[in-house]
Amino acid sequence: MPHSLLIKNAKLNGTPTDALIVNGVFQTIASNISAADGIPAIDAGGMVLAPAFYNGHTHAAMTLLRGYADDMELFSWLHDCIWPAEAKLDSDLVYHGTRLAILEMIKTGTVFFNDMYWLAPATIRAVDEMGARAAIGRIFTDGSDGKLRADMLENAKQSEAELDACGGTGRIRLTYAPHAVYTVSPKSLEWIAEQARHDCATVHIHASETAKEVSDCITANGCTPIALLARCGILGDKTILAHGVHLNDDDIKLIRESGATIVHNPCSNYKLCSGQFHYRKVKELGGCRVVLGTDGNASNNNLSMFDEMKLAALSAKLESGDPSCAPAADVWRMATADAAAAFGIKGGVIAEGYVGDALLLDNYAVQMCPEYNLAANVVYSCDTSCVDTVICDGRVLMRHRRVEHETEIIAAAQEAAHRFTASSKHTY
Amino acid sequence: MPHSLLIKNAKLNGTPTDALIVNGVFQTIASNISAADGIPAIDAGGMVLAPAFYNGHTHAAMTLLRGYADDMELFSWLHDCIWPAEAKLDSDLVYHGTRLAILEMIKTGTVFFNDMYWLAPATIRAVDEMGARAAIGRIFTDGSDGKLRADMLENAKQSEAELDACGGTGRIRLTYAPHAVYTVSPKSLEWIAEQARHDCATVHIHASETAKEVSDCITANGCTPIALLARCGILGDKTILAHGVHLNDDDIKLIRESGATIVHNPCSNYKLCSGQFHYRKVKELGGCRVVLGTDGNASNNNLSMFDEMKLAALSAKLESGDPSCAPAADVWRMATADAAAAFGIKGGVIAEGYVGDALLLDNYAVQMCPEYNLAANVVYSCDTSCVDTVICDGRVLMRHRRVEHETEIIAAAQEAAHRFTASSKHTY
Repeated sequence: MPHSLLIKNAKLNGTPTDALIVNGVFQTIASNISAADGIPAIDAGGMVLAPAFYNGHTHAAMTLLRGYADDMELFSWLHDCIWPAEAKLDSDLVYHGTRLAILEMIKTGTVFFNDMYWLAPATIRAVDEMGARAAIGRIFTDGSDGKLRADMLENAKQSEAELDACGGTGRIRLTYAPHAVYTVSPKSLEWIAEQARHDCATVHIHASETAKEVSDCITANGCTPIALLARCGILGDKTILAHGVHLNDDDIKLIRESGATIVHNPCSNYKLCSGQFHYRKVKELGGCRVVLGTDGNASNNNLSMFDEMKLAALSAKLESGDPSCAPAADVWRMATADAAAAFGIKGGVIAEGYVGDALLLDNYAVQMCPEYNLAANVVYSCDTSCVDTVICDGRVLMRHRRVEHETEIIAAAQEAAHRFTASSKHTY
Repeated sequence: MPHSLLIKNAKLNGTPTDALIVNGVFQTIASNISAADGIPAIDAGGMVLAPAFYNGHTHAAMTLLRGYADDMELFSWLHDCIWPAEAKLDSDLVYHGTRLAILEMIKTGTVFFNDMYWLAPATIRAVDEMGARAAIGRIFTDGSDGKLRADMLENAKQSEAELDACGGTGRIRLTYAPHAVYTVSPKSLEWIAEQARHDCATVHIHASETAKEVSDCITANGCTPIALLARCGILGDKTILAHGVHLNDDDIKLIRESGATIVHNPCSNYKLCSGQFHYRKVKELGGCRVVLGTDGNASNNNLSMFDEMKLAALSAKLESGDPSCAPAADVWRMATADAAAAFGIKGGVIAEGYVGDALLLDNYAVQMCPEYNLAANVVYSCDTSCVDTVICDGRVLMRHRRVEHETEIIAAAQEAAHRFTASSKHTY
């Protein structure tokens, strides 16, 4: 159920203000709003009312693998560490890993994430319980045993049943998540495109993440991954393309014309050596919608949108050779309003009629001083220590940096991680 | 005066431990150390005892210009914004700007910084009062009026007098800080090299930061900045070269053989488009000592060594195309032990006989879970919200994220910033 909340004594665009959220939507933003019966109120203490972050691409449950395998070649990272661990995956691990991830996102100012992982019903349960928003992908890969479509339909059915069991909360929606063109056949992509069109659902897919993916796709299919997605009917205005590091001019044109969204994951692209995203070419000149994501914690290793914003801006400047490329206000918008729009959520903006997601940023924090430029301070200076309060759908998820049950969530995740990896290499 | 402190109930290398600092030096690290008369004790509550950070290059007082001018071309950034502001600089502004910077460094786990800025006596006073460590540069640039050497000697004298007035604390040392080869003539560099040799002092200089600096130097002097520094007698094992972005093979050889230290400032190099530092070539293959710095807040825009460590590691991986380049443990050492060694401080390591600088990292923080790999969590996941306690020279500078007088320091800095820039563009 969406909540109602009165926020007193905040600052917005340099002006003192109150804000009233009714049933999960900003109803009034004005000075001196009176308290109403039955609506809880918080005193912002003069802090800055800012949009909460929306994380465009992650694998939340992989937070259980944070720090499990780093500084390794991709092949041995996957074969020796990640896949052997994931072979032991079960719903309980996904549940505890996702709760840990959501706790981390709340503590770093993020209220929404676009997820792709196995055992989606466990993810749905974690999101529902913790009060966050999410687009949850029913992951699909082709295999050799021919029963994967049936598996996916079963997974999709279970996810819908789980969502119904949660009372069909508006905070959660399901997406189709074919993994990538190198794990899903063109025939299956066509089939998924049809399902998604039928359901008016978002399709979430890794696309053009590495140079190898692109060259392999050209060898196998005679065209780039983006051209293949267009050919299979996947590319459309509800399509979320994770990464988009290696795009040619035709790819950019196809993406722009389809209205699809690219999720730029700078930290992961750097850490795994996937490549340098071409911000100026794709967004500023190419006109594509670009939002930001963290990718999973096995390859990042955190879910802080502050890290993504700073690296997105800095790497775009260095790559273009122009310090005016990717200015702070644009980058902030990619992590808020642009991302909300990409997922069909009227959010990421503090304004009447928008969903009641917000942060209180501590403008008394040292990284926020002096007060010349809020966007520059948010993108280049702040970190999560500046986030005081997090509100999602009108409900306070964090107040003065405390989240309900955080100690238990961390302890349960730590225990789950031990079971997951059976690792004895704990180093604290 | 150095302090004594007993730290009870910490964790080191996965083992519960106590640690006793006597007169600013770790004397005993063992289990169950008994409290001694007159030595204050703190309970670490099971947190991780870790080395504090050492910031290899900054301009602390420029924190007053954080967010004042961003996303601009270098030339208009300097001419239209930074230099007009700096024309109004006075000791009071430097004092309040430096206090703000030191507060930020303490809150982000840094206890030492290597500074280069005007009006050094004001910096000395701020460092002394706030209990940090610093190497403070007496900045030097040549000018057209011929009296700059006299000015610098006067500045040097005043700095020494200020340091004497502080009781000659061992936490502060003075360095010679010729600004760069494009602002200091070869003749003046030779003269400074002689002074520094005579005083056994560190020389701190910007070197090979931009491609333009290198090509201009070749045009003017027939050699690279590094070769020029070698020729002028500046290059030696007490020399700190800030940036070193554009180095050829001969430069790298000269630096390695001289024992000089390069301070890598990844965030600043990216934000100002100075260039990509060649980590593998310079450090892993070239064998040079490389440490990390934040540069000033006008071009970063924070002083968090967490941001520098993460970008140093990630950018080295992408540039080399090898995810095993710049592993977490190496990068963490660059921000701690390697930096301490570069400044002749026996620090950056938690061990008996080393200076009593340390952090308590909150291993119950969400970014620290799971506990597979402390170095990976510190470099890739943590941010300043994970730093609970900061100790310098045996004295507790931050406890449970609170620093003495922080509200007053921020308020005074905010007021100083208003006076500095006479700016009305406050946006909160």
